[in-house]
Parts: sequence; structure tokens; C-alpha cells
Amino acid sequence: MKSKKVKAFAPATVANVAVGFDILGFALSNIGEVASLEKIENRPEVYLKPVKGFATLPLDPLKNTATAGLVRLIQEKKLSYGFNVDLEKSIPIGSGLGGSAASAVATIVAANFFLKNKLTLSEMLDYASTGEAVASGSQHADNVGPCLYGGLVLIQGLPEVLISKIKTPSSLRCIILLPDITIYTKDARKLLQPQVTMAQMIEQSANLAGFVLGCQTGQFLLIKRSLRDVIIEPQRAALIPGFKSLQAAALAAGALGCSISGSGPAIFALAANQQQALSIKKNLLKTAKQENVKLKNLWISNISTKGAHLLTGRTGLV
Amino acid sequence: MKSKKVKAFAPATVANVAVGFDILGFALSNIGEVASLEKIENRPEVYLKPVKGFATLPLDPLKNTATAGLVRLIQEKKLSYGFNVDLEKSIPIGSGLGGSAASAVATIVAANFFLKNKLTLSEMLDYASTGEAVASGSQHADNVGPCLYGGLVLIQGLPEVLISKIKTPSSLRCIILLPDITIYTKDARKLLQPQVTMAQMIEQSANLAGFVLGCQTGQFLLIKRSLRDVIIEPQRAALIPGFKSLQAAALAAGALGCSISGSGPAIFALAANQQQALSIKKNLLKTAKQENVKLKNLWISNISTKGAHLLTGRTGLV
Repeated sequence: MKSKKVKAFAPATVANVAVGFDILGFALSNIGEVASLEKIENRPEVYLKPVKGFATLPLDPLKNTATAGLVRLIQEKKLSYGFNVDLEKSIPIGSGLGGSAASAVATIVAANFFLKNKLTLSEMLDYASTGEAVASGSQHADNVGPCLYGGLVLIQGLPEVLISKIKTPSSLRCIILLPDITIYTKDARKLLQPQVTMAQMIEQSANLAGFVLGCQTGQFLLIKRSLRDVIIEPQRAALIPGFKSLQAAALAAGALGCSISGSGPAIFALAANQQQALSIKKNLLKTAKQENVKLKNLWISNISTKGAHLLTGRTGLV
Repeated sequence: MKSKKVKAFAPATVANVAVGFDILGFALSNIGEVASLEKIENRPEVYLKPVKGFATLPLDPLKNTATAGLVRLIQEKKLSYGFNVDLEKSIPIGSGLGGSAASAVATIVAANFFLKNKLTLSEMLDYASTGEAVASGSQHADNVGPCLYGGLVLIQGLPEVLISKIKTPSSLRCIILLPDITIYTKDARKLLQPQVTMAQMIEQSANLAGFVLGCQTGQFLLIKRSLRDVIIEPQRAALIPGFKSLQAAALAAGALGCSISGSGPAIFALAANQQQALSIKKNLLKTAKQENVKLKNLWISNISTKGAHLLTGRTGLV
């Protein structure tokens, strides 16, 4: 019996990672979006069900990040069939955790099942990026890339998009603190100066290279020394009440680094191991209370080496 | 019998490496400077012999890159003795191959013998950088670092200098073309715009991260895709007659990349192996002739994993 309905999971992601504005991102393991696709025979169209808890999301498939890429896929691959899309979102909108990217990736990964897995990762990246562009105003793969590939990835944009995996130490943990405010990527981008000084570029470049090398070779001291954003974070920190205190709290508890996830307001910190992550979480909770920062959530995650994937069994393939 | 005279070799280096302005450099294997140090008991002073073939070099030890660090070393370590320094230079001045850095490193490495090798690499880097500052006007370790440590290195400058080694594929070759002109680092620095656009920074950052990852993991395709300077080279290329044609010739012969070594006029190209290096060399020679570019030299080198070191035997320890 042919399956007519498929579910795919796509993880939340941390883009920029302090030192890799628009070019680095990694996948989280405990949170993400699930897209259920039901095939509609002989009707190459896309229908999106209202998303529970996300009443403001547009239902026009061309205007929703989850489905814009799907529409393009159907057109370009000249599919004879279409999809009913049911989205279970758990990443809050405007959180800086790549929710729109994850929605876009989940639908494409699910759709690939009906195309007999013939889409390459590059093609899926491209279609999912179409969706992401609906949300951010331009096609960036810094969330879509790690969401689809898993792990920590480098995204090179020119002349064509290339995703390269960077190893990370297996004990590495990420602490995510999500304040109860919303920041839209479009707005956060407008804040940024269009130029940087040569001195800033040199320092940030050295940090970037040190972070990549430190992750790939498992040198925690090098990661710690390098994970410091001298360009973007100073321009955006004011958007997040209490950021400086929270960052100081994470660093005081031994964090390898602490900065803004994507365009925020989520804050991420990296820890060398679970024990350190627990100390950081504790210190962040204490400081959030002191600073009257209301939290939506605060949790510890691995860097997930698994990217978006089909769900099977009870919650998956039906 | 105690040795009273010691020789040290310090290699020529390629700084910047297209994508790592002020933060990347690697050591060459076939060319460098040799410093002979003779101990002067009970006289903590430095005397520099006139350097054969380099009549314009200052002989005041505080003004010569080879000896300024040595003077500081004697003062700070409160040595009771001094040195007669004899320098055999083979790296032309103003070539972009780290000649002044190599001179500074060679004397410090030789001096370390008399200090019973008690200087750490960091200390030697610091003293050699004092010498380098005499030549370039500021203390940069992008030549001194790879010269002292060997191999391809990342130089992080802030808050304190840290050198990290980056692996390179063992078959990697470097082709160096040295045109018969002189460029002074101070002048080449004045040419540079003090700011870069965010778009340039993102592209260059992605290239830098890709190059570091490609070298460390031995991915030639990633190295090739990444070794492209969109910021510094476009501003400096005009200083080197025929640069664009020479670069095109190297790339046409399969080079992984081709750019300016340090502040030039030396041009470097990287090749995946010796055979490719020979093709590149041939094409460069042909193009230099066509473009009427007079050459001082053109040669193929390994990336030397060995940094500056004492010379022993016939040409070394006396």
C-alpha cells in the first residue's frame, strides 16, 4: 500500500553563532517543526491548514514560508499532484531560532518522500530557501543550511550556495534562553551599519577562523578565546533587555561563549559539557530573575548532528 | 667545549594568503635568512656586520629588524653578554615574502641557544615582532608567526597574540613568482580603504572559513572555491604590473588560487600537487614573457612544516 501521508521533523537552529554573520549555523536537538503532507492526486496545488497557536500566519501558500518552496517545487518538477499541509509549529515566531526556515525545510523533506527521494540536498536547500525568503526578505541559508544538513555548518553564498560540515566536540552543549519578547529579522537587519572598519574585520575574521578550527579539532580553549562577536552583537544587544547581564552570567559560569541566536531575542551559550551547561543554566535563571527578564523558555540541547528527517512509526509515516 | 657561535635559519613566508588579511600565513621551504650569533662575554651589546648585498640596511641595532628584538631581549632578561650578528639574507627587501620577519626570527632563535632554550615560543614571537615592527611600522605577527612555528598558521592578535597551527594536505605546493620590482609594506597599507562593506565582509569571511576548513580536512575543492580575496587584492593589484594576466594564467593551469603574497609584489599560487605546480610554473613563465614582466625569481615550494631552527653540522653550530 502506498503511503499518502508523510511527516517530517526539522530542527530549530542557531544562526550567525557570534562570529559567522550570515555564514555559520548549527542545529538544535530538542525543538523543531513537524510538517505532515498528504498527497492530493491530480491536483498540483498546495493547501495549508490553519496552524494551531499561530493565528497570524498567512494561509496563502505563496506567502507562507512553509509552502512557498513547495509551490515552486510542484511547478518546476511539473508534478501532477499537490499537497495538503498540516504544520505543527513549536518554535515561536520572531525568536531567532530559525522557525520559518524549519517550517520551509520540513515541508520540502516530506515532499521529497513523494518524489521517491530524488531531490538532492542542494535542491532541497534551494527550495526551502525560497520559503525562508518570504519571511526574511532575502534568501539566506544560515538557518536553512544547518536545519537541513544537521550539525554545525558553513554556508558559502557566492557564486552558488555550498554547505560544508564542521565537526564539533561530542560533549559540546548549547544553552538557549528565550526571552518573552519578539524581534523580526527584517527589523534587526535595518539596525546594522552597512560598513565595518578594517580593524573590526580583522579581529572578527581571526575569531571566526579560530572558532572553526577549534570546533573541527576539538580545542575548547581556542573555541573559548574565539567565540566573541565584535561587530553584530554590539549593534543588536540593546534590542534584548538584560542581554549584557545574562551574557556575563553565562561567561561567569564557564560558558565558552554567549551571544545572540540569529537576530534574537534568543540568546545561546556554548558549554564544554553537560555539567558546565547545568551551571550556566542555573546562573542564567538566577540572573534573569534579578534583571526582571521574563522568559519563554530556557533549555539545554546537543548540537544535533541529524538534520531534518522523516518521522516514521506512531508519529510518522501513516 | 661551550659553543660561542650559533647559526639559525628562518624561512620566507606568505602572509595574508588571500583570505586572511593580517591573520594567516605559511612558511616556505626553499628560501630564508641565516643569522650567525657570536657571544660577546661581559658586554651586553649588539653589533651587526654589514649585510652582504644589502648595503642600504641600517647598522644601528635598534633600527635594524634583525637586531631590535635582540636588544630588547638582552635588556629584559638582564643578560651579562651580548652578540656579534652576521646575517646572510637571501629574501629581497620589499618582496612581500617576510624577509624582515625572517631576519628578526633567525636572530632570536639563535639567541635562544645561549639562553639554554629557555624562551617559550610566545616569548620568541614577541621579541621577533619587536624587530618586525621596525620595518612595517606596527607589530604584526602574520609573517613572524608562520616563520617561527612553521606550516600554515592562524594569528589572533587580541587580547594577546595566539598562534594556532592549521593542517595542510601534504601534497600541497606553493608557486612563488617574484617580479623585479619593490613594494614597501608601509606604502601598500596606505592604499587600503579603512572600511569594508558588510557584503564584502560576509563573502570574505565565508572564504576564510572555507579555506581554513578545507586545509584542515584536506578538501581541495573547498580550498579552491574559497581561496579568493574580494577585499585587499582588488585594492592592491594595480601595484603589480601584469598581475591580472599572471593570476589568470595560474588559474588556467589549475591553481587552487592565486593572489598577492603579503603586500607584494611576490605572487603566490597554490597547487594540489607537484605536477599541477609544474604546469602552473610553466604557464606563469609564458605569461610573464608575453606581458613583459621581468622576474627576479619563480619557484616551487612545499608548505614547510618546520619553522625557524638552529643549523648544526657543517653550516651550523661551530
